[in-house]
Amino acid sequence: MDRRKFLKGSALLSGLFTINPVDLLANQTLINPKSNKRAKNIIFMVSDGMSSGTLAMANLYSQNILGKSGNWVNLYKENKVSRALMDTASASSIVTDSAAASSSFGGGFRVKNGVLNIGANGEKYLPIWQKFKKAGKKAGCVTTVTITHATPAGFCVNSASRNAEPEIAEMYAEIGLDVMMGGGDEFFNAEKREDKKDVYALYQQKGYQILKTRSDLQKVENNKQILGVFNKGALPYSIDRTNTPALQSTPTLAEMAKTAIDQMKDHKEGFVLQIEGGKVDWSAHANDVAALIHDQIAFEEAVKVAIDFAEKDKNTLVIITTDHGNANPGTIYGADATKNFNSIANYKFTNEYVLNAIHPDFNLQQTKDWIYETNKISLADEEAKSLLSFYTNLEKESGLYNYKKLPFKLYSDIQKKHNSVGWISMDHSGDYVELAMFGPGSELLKPFVKNTDLHYIMLEATGLSVNVDKN
Amino acid sequence: MDRRKFLKGSALLSGLFTINPVDLLANQTLINPKSNKRAKNIIFMVSDGMSSGTLAMANLYSQNILGKSGNWVNLYKENKVSRALMDTASASSIVTDSAAASSSFGGGFRVKNGVLNIGANGEKYLPIWQKFKKAGKKAGCVTTVTITHATPAGFCVNSASRNAEPEIAEMYAEIGLDVMMGGGDEFFNAEKREDKKDVYALYQQKGYQILKTRSDLQKVENNKQILGVFNKGALPYSIDRTNTPALQSTPTLAEMAKTAIDQMKDHKEGFVLQIEGGKVDWSAHANDVAALIHDQIAFEEAVKVAIDFAEKDKNTLVIITTDHGNANPGTIYGADATKNFNSIANYKFTNEYVLNAIHPDFNLQQTKDWIYETNKISLADEEAKSLLSFYTNLEKESGLYNYKKLPFKLYSDIQKKHNSVGWISMDHSGDYVELAMFGPGSELLKPFVKNTDLHYIMLEATGLSVNVDKN
Repeated sequence: MDRRKFLKGSALLSGLFTINPVDLLANQTLINPKSNKRAKNIIFMVSDGMSSGTLAMANLYSQNILGKSGNWVNLYKENKVSRALMDTASASSIVTDSAAASSSFGGGFRVKNGVLNIGANGEKYLPIWQKFKKAGKKAGCVTTVTITHATPAGFCVNSASRNAEPEIAEMYAEIGLDVMMGGGDEFFNAEKREDKKDVYALYQQKGYQILKTRSDLQKVENNKQILGVFNKGALPYSIDRTNTPALQSTPTLAEMAKTAIDQMKDHKEGFVLQIEGGKVDWSAHANDVAALIHDQIAFEEAVKVAIDFAEKDKNTLVIITTDHGNANPGTIYGADATKNFNSIANYKFTNEYVLNAIHPDFNLQQTKDWIYETNKISLADEEAKSLLSFYTNLEKESGLYNYKKLPFKLYSDIQKKHNSVGWISMDHSGDYVELAMFGPGSELLKPFVKNTDLHYIMLEATGLSVNVDKN
Repeated sequence: MDRRKFLKGSALLSGLFTINPVDLLANQTLINPKSNKRAKNIIFMVSDGMSSGTLAMANLYSQNILGKSGNWVNLYKENKVSRALMDTASASSIVTDSAAASSSFGGGFRVKNGVLNIGANGEKYLPIWQKFKKAGKKAGCVTTVTITHATPAGFCVNSASRNAEPEIAEMYAEIGLDVMMGGGDEFFNAEKREDKKDVYALYQQKGYQILKTRSDLQKVENNKQILGVFNKGALPYSIDRTNTPALQSTPTLAEMAKTAIDQMKDHKEGFVLQIEGGKVDWSAHANDVAALIHDQIAFEEAVKVAIDFAEKDKNTLVIITTDHGNANPGTIYGADATKNFNSIANYKFTNEYVLNAIHPDFNLQQTKDWIYETNKISLADEEAKSLLSFYTNLEKESGLYNYKKLPFKLYSDIQKKHNSVGWISMDHSGDYVELAMFGPGSELLKPFVKNTDLHYIMLEATGLSVNVDKN
C-alpha cells in the first residue's frame, strides 16, 4: 500500500475523518517500508563455509583490534535488514558441499553433493542467472577462488560434476554472462589447459574485455562484457595479500564487487550479481584462524560496497549469507581467553605460507624463530620438535585444499593453546546458518528457510514469471 | 492500534470510504500486533550452554527420528517470534561463565566470571526477580540442576561467589521467592549440610510447601509458596530418566514449568519465572551428544508449555535463549554423515551412565558388549583397548561436571567416528547466540543485543519504573 496514494485518493474525505489515517499507519511497526515494491537488481553474497562462530570471531576481532564493528553485524546494530536461519542440507546429506548448496540457491532444487543443477534422474534445472539473462537482465559473478568453482557455477550452469572446471569456463562464454571475475587462469589459458584450447580467445571473439591484473580494473570499458582472471588457482588469502606487496597486483573482493556493480548498474532491465568470499571456506578447511578472520573481514568489505550501492539505488535486493558451516570454530573459555584471542593480531601470514617455508633441514631454533617471526608464538621445544618431525616424516596430512600437504591440523592444535580457538573438524558442518536481506524483497523472508527457498524469493522479489522457472 | 476499536469508532463513516481501512491494515506486515501493550508476566527460558549447533542438531534429530520439527525452530517456521543474535561476554572475558551471564540478564551489568551481581568495586546490583517482587509480582525459578546454581541465582541474589550454594539456599527464603524447583538437596538438608542447619525447616516456618518427588507436583496447594527439591545434585539427564524407571520419581522440566505457571498465573499483579535447561550445558561439557540432544528436546518441551500458556494468556512475554555457547558441536561432512547422525537414536543412556558401568576388571569382550548394548556401536579392538586402559590407568580425565573422572573425551572421540559429530573443546564458547521473544514486549528486541540489554527490555516491557532499577 502506497501511503501517499491512499492519502491523495481520500483527500476529499479528510474533513470527515475522526481518526487520521496517518496516525493509524504511524502506529504500526513495519518490517519493511518498501513492502510490495519489486527489486530491479539482486546482489547475492556468499561467505562460503561460514559457521556462526566465524561471523562472531570476525566481529570480535574488528571490535577488539580494529576498534569498530564488522560490517555484517553492523547491519543488525543499525536494524537495516531482515534475518533468518537457513537449513543448508543437500539431496544426499545433512551436510552439503558447495556444489549442491549453490544448486539449491541457483536451481531451486536440492541435488546430490558434487553435482551442479542436475537431479537424480538427470533432470536439468535451469540456473537462476540464465533465467535472469532471459528476462533481459545483466548477470555476473565475482569470487576469490576460481571463477569456475562450485559457488559461481551453481548460479550459471548444469554439470554432472563440479570438477569440470575447464568445460565450465567455456559454458560461461556461451551463456554470455556479463561480468565474471576471480581466479582460474589454468582453465582459460591454452598453455595450461590439457586440450590446449585458448578459452580467452573464445571470450575475445565474443567481444569480452579480458582483465588480468588489479590495474586492469581501473581501465574497464563501459558496455563491454568482462572476463577477469587474476591468478592461477584461487586469489591470495587476504592476510597474505596485505603483508606481501607482490600479491597486490590481484584485486580485493570489494574492488571486484565495485567494478562489477559499476559495469552493470546502468542497464535498463537491471542486473544480478553473485559475490563469493570463497577462501573463508578454504581457511576453515585448513583450521587457519587468521586467514579465516581476515578473509571474512574482506568479504564484509564487499558487503559494505553492496549495501552502499543498494542504499542509494533503492531498487536492489541484497542477500547476505553462506552456503554451509565449516569446522564450527569458536573461542574457548579460560582465564586468558581474551588475551589469547587478541594475539591473533600478531599473525602476519596464513598457516599455508608459514608452514610452506619450513624445510626438513631446519633445526629446532630456526623453526622456533620462524614461528615467532610470523606468529609471535614462542614454541616449546616439544612443539617445535613435533612440527619439524612432520617434514622429515613420510606420512603427510591430506585434506581438501591442502594441495601442499602441510601440517595444518598439527599446527592449528599448537596455535589453539595460544589463541583459545578450537575447531570440530577440517570439513563442512550441517549447522543452520545466518542469512540477512536488505532492500525490496527482503520482506518475503521468513525466520526459518531452506536453502532452496532463496531461489523462489529471488524470482518473486523481481516479479519474474514462474513460467520462466520451468526448463 | 486496536483494529476493532478503530473500526468501531469509524463505523458511522464506513459508507463514505472509497478504500476500506481493513485492506489498508491487512496490507502491512506487522512485527508484532501487540505493539505498545505492556507485559504482565515474563517467562525467561535459558537452555544453558546452547551453541547454535545444539539447536540445529536437536531439530535435525526431531525431524529425522521423531518425525516433527523441534518446538523452538517451529516458532520460527510459524513466524511467531522476534529473533536476535546476542553477545554473551562478561566483564572479565570474551567467554562468560553462567554466573556472570545470568548476572548480565539479572542485574543489568556485566560482572566478572564466577560472581553473582557484584561489580568490580563491590557494587551490588539489585537482581531483577527482587525488582519484580518489589513491584508486587510473584517470582520463581525452575531448573534441571541445583536450584541454587548460577543461572537461577543470578536472577535472585548477590554473592561474591557462585559456589556459595548453601548460603544461596537460605537467601531465597529471605527474599520470599514464590516457586523454586530443581535439585540440590545437599544445600537444604540438615544431614547433608556442613553446618547441619535445617534449611527446609526455615522454608516451612515461612509457610512454604516442600516438594520432594514428582507425585508431590500433582498435590500442590494453591496460594502457598513452593520449594521443590527433587534430587541430591542435579536432576537426571533426560535420556537416562526416559530409560530408567527408577529415575522417573523426578519431574521433567516441562512438568515443573507447568506447575510453576499454574501456581502463579492467577496473581493479580502478574508473575515472572525463569526456566533453565541446565544439563544442556553439562552434556556439552561432557561432549555427550545423546545427552545434549535429549536435554535440548526436554527444554523445548518446556518451551511449548510456556508458549501454550502465553498464547492463551496474551499478557506474557516469553524470552527463549541461552547464556553462552558450549563446545560448538556440529555434524561433519562425509559420505555417511546422515546415517551416522541418525545412529544417535540407538544411544539409550548418557556417556556418564555408560562409562560409569565399566570397571577395571572388564575384559575386552565385556567392554565391546556393553558399548554395543547401550550405543549399538561395534568397537574395534583397539578402541575397546584404549577405553579400558583408562580404567586401569592412574591419570584420569578431569573437567567441569566430570565428578566421576570418566573418559568423556576419549569416548566422545570414539563416538565421533560413528556419529559424525565433533566438538571444539569441553568448555564454553564465545559465539553469539540465538535469542527469541514472543508476546508483548517482543517488539522491543533489536536484531543484535548484548546480554545486559535483556534486563532493560524486561523492565521496559512490563513498564517497571527505571527508579526501581537503582539499588
